[in-house]
Amino acid sequence: MNENLFARMQELRDLSGVIGLASWDQETYLPKKAEAGRAAQLGTMQALHHERLVDPRLGDWLADAKPATPDEVAMVRVLTQERSRALKVPAALVKALAEAQSRALSAWREARDEKDFKRFQPHVQKLLELRREMADAWGHDGERYDALLENYEPGMRVKRLSPVLSDLRTKLVPLVQAIDARPPPRRLFEGKTFDTGQQWQFTMHLLEAMGFDLEAGRQDRSTHPFTGGTGLYDVRLTTRVFPHLPLSSVFSTIHEGGHGLYEQGFAPEHERTTLAQAPSMGLHESQSRLWENIVGRSQPFWSYFYSRYQGTFPDQLEGVPLADFLREVNRVERSLIRVEADEVTYNLHIVLRYELELELIRGNLQAADLEAAWNQKTKDLLQLEVPNVNQGVLQDIHWAFGEFGYFPTYALGNLYAASLWKAMNRDIRGLEVSIAQGELAPVKNWLREKVHREGYRLDAEALVTRITGTGLTDDDFISYLKMKYGALYGI
Amino acid sequence: MNENLFARMQELRDLSGVIGLASWDQETYLPKKAEAGRAAQLGTMQALHHERLVDPRLGDWLADAKPATPDEVAMVRVLTQERSRALKVPAALVKALAEAQSRALSAWREARDEKDFKRFQPHVQKLLELRREMADAWGHDGERYDALLENYEPGMRVKRLSPVLSDLRTKLVPLVQAIDARPPPRRLFEGKTFDTGQQWQFTMHLLEAMGFDLEAGRQDRSTHPFTGGTGLYDVRLTTRVFPHLPLSSVFSTIHEGGHGLYEQGFAPEHERTTLAQAPSMGLHESQSRLWENIVGRSQPFWSYFYSRYQGTFPDQLEGVPLADFLREVNRVERSLIRVEADEVTYNLHIVLRYELELELIRGNLQAADLEAAWNQKTKDLLQLEVPNVNQGVLQDIHWAFGEFGYFPTYALGNLYAASLWKAMNRDIRGLEVSIAQGELAPVKNWLREKVHREGYRLDAEALVTRITGTGLTDDDFISYLKMKYGALYGI
Repeated sequence: MNENLFARMQELRDLSGVIGLASWDQETYLPKKAEAGRAAQLGTMQALHHERLVDPRLGDWLADAKPATPDEVAMVRVLTQERSRALKVPAALVKALAEAQSRALSAWREARDEKDFKRFQPHVQKLLELRREMADAWGHDGERYDALLENYEPGMRVKRLSPVLSDLRTKLVPLVQAIDARPPPRRLFEGKTFDTGQQWQFTMHLLEAMGFDLEAGRQDRSTHPFTGGTGLYDVRLTTRVFPHLPLSSVFSTIHEGGHGLYEQGFAPEHERTTLAQAPSMGLHESQSRLWENIVGRSQPFWSYFYSRYQGTFPDQLEGVPLADFLREVNRVERSLIRVEADEVTYNLHIVLRYELELELIRGNLQAADLEAAWNQKTKDLLQLEVPNVNQGVLQDIHWAFGEFGYFPTYALGNLYAASLWKAMNRDIRGLEVSIAQGELAPVKNWLREKVHREGYRLDAEALVTRITGTGLTDDDFISYLKMKYGALYGI
Repeated sequence: MNENLFARMQELRDLSGVIGLASWDQETYLPKKAEAGRAAQLGTMQALHHERLVDPRLGDWLADAKPATPDEVAMVRVLTQERSRALKVPAALVKALAEAQSRALSAWREARDEKDFKRFQPHVQKLLELRREMADAWGHDGERYDALLENYEPGMRVKRLSPVLSDLRTKLVPLVQAIDARPPPRRLFEGKTFDTGQQWQFTMHLLEAMGFDLEAGRQDRSTHPFTGGTGLYDVRLTTRVFPHLPLSSVFSTIHEGGHGLYEQGFAPEHERTTLAQAPSMGLHESQSRLWENIVGRSQPFWSYFYSRYQGTFPDQLEGVPLADFLREVNRVERSLIRVEADEVTYNLHIVLRYELELELIRGNLQAADLEAAWNQKTKDLLQLEVPNVNQGVLQDIHWAFGEFGYFPTYALGNLYAASLWKAMNRDIRGLEVSIAQGELAPVKNWLREKVHREGYRLDAEALVTRITGTGLTDDDFISYLKMKYGALYGI
C-alpha cells in the first residue's frame, strides 16, 4: 500500500483520537471558564482534520493506493468514501450550517426556558433548508433523507428502513396496550437513598464482570453518559450516579460498557487505520442495547448479580425478592420522554421521530406544523397528551444540532441486538446458564469474534447478514419482547 | 496585523494547547495500555505543529505582518524567533535526536536498574554530539552552550550566567557549612500517618487561599507533580500525596500553585497568542519558588495556616509548637538528591550540573569521565561521597532526554524570586502582616500586575530589571537566606 497514503491515514486517525480526548475532557474535567477556549481548540482540530482529508495529494495517493490485502482494500474504500463526502460539500455551506447550529442551539435553550416552540421554529426551518442543500451536495436517488442517513448508517436507505419500522410500529402498539392492561410492578426504591460511592463500586464490579479492560480504558462521571476515548487501548466510558435512582448508574454503565467493549474489540492490527471503527451508529448501538437490555435486564443475569447488589445495599433491598426486582428493572410504561423509555415503548418514540423528520426533509411537513404533528403522533402511538413542549417536540437536542437521520439508528440498534442475540444462542449452548453463573465471557467473546474484530470491513447490514443469515428485520426483536414480557406480565 | 498571520498564530497556540492536554492526560488518567498510542498521537501533533510553523506561507505573512500595536510587534517577534529556530534545524537532525533520545532513555533506565553508568555513557556521548550539532545549526558566537540555553532562557548567555553562579557557589558553601555546624531540627513526623484525603483537602484549601482560580484550572494527582493545561482558563496542576510524608503534598501544591497562578495570570487579551506564555523557564520557576519557599516556608505564612493544619491533623500535631514546625519545614541538610534538597543547598546541586554540562558541551569533558567528575564535585560542593550512580550522575532524567542547558533555569528561578520578593516588599507596606492574617491576595496581585500580565512582551531579565531596578544577581537571594536561616539556626 502506498506509504504516503498509509501515513496520512494514521495521521487522520491520530487527529480524530485527539479530538476524542478533547471532547471527552470537555464533558468530564474541563474547568468551567475554559469552555470557549476548548471550543476554539476543537474547531482548529476539526478544520485541520478536514484540510488534511481534502488535501489534493491524498487524492493522488488514493488513486495510486496499491492495496495489497483485503484489509487494505477496505481501508482505502472507507477513506475514499470519507474524503469524497468531505469534498462534496462547499466550505460556505459547512460554515453556514455551523453558524445556524450555534444559533439554533441557543434558541432551543431559550425555547425550553419559555416552553415555547415558536422561538425555535424558524431555526428548525433554516436547518432543514441547509440540510436539504447538504443532502443534494452529497447526492441521492431522489430521496434526500438517504443522503443524511448515510452520515450515521452507511448503506441504509429509506426504502429498506421504512417498511421495517412501519411493521415494528404495527406490532408494538398492541403489545404495549396488552402490557398496559396488566397491573404495574410495585415501586421498590421510593424514599430510599443509595450511597453514591457504593453505587460507583458496583458499576466498576459490573464492568469487570463484562470483561471491559480497565487497563485499556476507564470510567468517569459526566452529566450525560457517553463512550469516547482516543483509540482501542484508550476507551473512556462515563456514567452518572443519583442517590435516589439507583438503577440509573447500573444500566448506564452496562449500556456504555457495551459500547466500550466494541471499541476495545477492534483488531489490534487495525489500530490507527480506518478499519478500527464501527460501520454504523446502529451497529454500535446494538452492542450497548444487547448488553443493557437483553443481558443486563435478564433473569439469568440478576439471578447471579442480585445477591451481590443486595450485599451492596442490604438495608435498602432487604426483603425484596429477585422476582420483584426483575419486574422493577423491566417496568413498561407509556411515557413522554424518549431517554427514560423502557425497551418496549422505546421504539415507538423512534418511529414518531423518524416519520416526522422524513416528512420534514421531504418538504411535506413544515416547521410551523411540527409541534401539532408531534402531539398528534404522541396520541396515536402512545395514547398520551403532551402537557408542554419540553416534554414534547423540544425534548431532544438532535434537531437543534441539525442532526436529521440520526434517530433511526437507535431502533436499528435494538433490532440488530435481538437478531445477534438469537444467533449467539444458536452458536453457544447453555449461554443463559453461563450468564446465571456470572460468566459473561461467552457473550463478550462471541461479539468480539463476530462483530468487534471485523471493524469497518463491511457495512453494518452486510455484517449482520453474514452473522445471522438474515439482514435487517424486526422479527427477532418482536419475538424477544413477546417471550420476555409475556412471562413477566403474564400475557 | 495580517489576518492570515493572526489566524495561523491562533492555530499554532491551539495545537500547543491540545498537545498540553494530551501530555497532562498521559500523566494523570491515561490507561496503561494506551501509552504507545498516546506517543503516536503526540508525535503526530508535534509534527503538525512543526509543519504549520515552518510553512513558507507563514514566512510570507510574517514578512508582511503589519503589526499595529506594541503587543502585535511583540507577537510577531516571538513567532518569528520560534519559526526561525525551527527552520534552522535540518529534519534529519531532528529525527536523529528523537531516536537517540528514545534509546538513551531506555539505556538510562537499564543503567539505573544495574547501577552502572557505563550502560548510559555512549548514549550521553551521542546526545552531546547531536546537541552540539544542533547548537551550531541554531547559531552562536563561539559558545555553543548559549544556543542551548536559548531554548529555555531566551536572551541568557554563559558570559552573564557563569559569574553569577560562581559567586553564588562561593557564598553558599560557607553558609551551608555554618548551618551544618548547628544542631539539626528534631524530626516531627516519624512513625505518624497522615490521611491522604485530609491532606488533599488541605492542599485545596491552600490553592484557594493563594487565589488559584478553580473555575479556570484544576488539581489532580500524578507521580511527579507538574503544571500543564491548555490555556489561561485551563491550568492543570498535579500533586502527590504520601501518608508518611505530609509536607510533600503541601509544598508541591504551593510550588505548582505558583506556576499555575502565572499561567492563569496572562492577559486575557493575549489568549491564543504567542504573548500568553512566560518569557523563560527561569522566570516561570521564580513564581513557583517564590510561593513555595519564600512565602510558603515563612514564619508569617504558618503563623496563620499552622492552626488550620493542626486542626486537620490534631492527633499528629498535638503538642508540636509552631517554632518546631517552622524549623522542620526549613530543615537544611547536605544531601545527594537534587529534588529532595532544601532551598539553601539546592543551588549547589545546580552549580554542579551547570559546571559539568558546560564543559561537556565545550568538549573539555568527555562522557567517559563524567561519573568521576560528578563524584568529585559532589565532594567539593557538598562534602559527600556518592555511594552509587543512582544517587549520583544517574539521578536526573534531563540528560537522558538530551536536555543540556535546562538546569541553570532552576537557579535563575531562585535568584529572580528573591529579587522580586525584595521589590514586592518595597512596593507593599505591611506585606508580611497581611500574610500573617492569611491574606495572600497582595502577593498574587502584585505578581499578576508586574509579572504575569506581561506575558512574553519582554525577555525575562529585561522584565525583572524593569521591576526590580537590577537584573540578574545573587545578592538578594544570599541576603534572604542569611536573614532567614540566621534567625532559624541562630548563626
